[in-house]
Amino acid sequence: MKFHATPLDGAYVIEPEPRGDERGWFQRVFCEREMTDAGLEGRFVQVNNSFNAEAGTLRGLHYQLPPSPEVKIVRCLSGALWDCIIDLRPNSATYLGWHAVELTGENRLAFYVPRGFAHGFVTLRPNTEALYLASEFYDPNSERGVRWNDPKFGIAWPVEGAIISEKDAKWPDFDEDFHGVERLRGV
Amino acid sequence: MKFHATPLDGAYVIEPEPRGDERGWFQRVFCEREMTDAGLEGRFVQVNNSFNAEAGTLRGLHYQLPPSPEVKIVRCLSGALWDCIIDLRPNSATYLGWHAVELTGENRLAFYVPRGFAHGFVTLRPNTEALYLASEFYDPNSERGVRWNDPKFGIAWPVEGAIISEKDAKWPDFDEDFHGVERLRGV
Repeated sequence: MKFHATPLDGAYVIEPEPRGDERGWFQRVFCEREMTDAGLEGRFVQVNNSFNAEAGTLRGLHYQLPPSPEVKIVRCLSGALWDCIIDLRPNSATYLGWHAVELTGENRLAFYVPRGFAHGFVTLRPNTEALYLASEFYDPNSERGVRWNDPKFGIAWPVEGAIISEKDAKWPDFDEDFHGVERLRGV
Repeated sequence: MKFHATPLDGAYVIEPEPRGDERGWFQRVFCEREMTDAGLEGRFVQVNNSFNAEAGTLRGLHYQLPPSPEVKIVRCLSGALWDCIIDLRPNSATYLGWHAVELTGENRLAFYVPRGFAHGFVTLRPNTEALYLASEFYDPNSERGVRWNDPKFGIAWPVEGAIISEKDAKWPDFDEDFHGVERLRGV
């Protein structure tokens, strides 16, 4: 696996290195040792999978506050995702900055999302499937969200007419108290 | 996730429990806590991915001896696998028994393969992709294989004309010494 830096400190794009053989190809998409050797999180406790029928389906942006801030590794199994993160660590040089990566069933890239980042995606094609690893258990009490079109961030989503859950459509405008970002200072 | 027992002691079929929503569905496909609550392995250190262009492609059957005997959780992301395991634990009531499960992109089942089992599959359709978690690092010194058509086991593969690597085609006839099964007695 190759780790490519992004404009946001601590966030990486992970590129697999498939080896062709008589039968097709084989690739390692996660290795605890390679992760920790690169200074990244190596232990993941949950793997989640979502299927999205329509292009323009939006999930996010989500994160967990301490005591459950999580690292995520997000991949696209089929179709295409525009995968977006926001740095919510108050002591980060890129605090409140966002960055997006296109993850597709063909490019096989993964997005390594550090603790203290909100994460979401919009699907660019119908029948898009996402798979992601999380380093902490889902904890509804620690869960927070940022609304996709919050003017505070001005994320340049590439598609309109998002199909979105009521919960995700209604996250309040960014507010440091509701969003608890002070708790992410040391994360 | 639901855990279904199989005829081989300690091997399970894992069935996800998708929840539909406005956008498609969401499902958890791995949870360390659910695994350990069920008495199963909860820590996995590598995730591997293979693509197989043709129906009738066979990979396996592989296992690792101590000190690296591994649990695997195998899923099919697209296409269809006939996924087969052999119990190589000398102290097991089902020693040398085999069992197979059809894993497809539609049924979303996973096969939990305990330590001390050889594992392999044949693809039932073209363009079949497999994803599997392993509880130990790949260790070439500990790796062993059983030949798919070894008469000792008489596995009833559902398709003929297997496309197979030279390495997998040449594993020797089952022999307790070469295969090191005594080392799997306590596994």
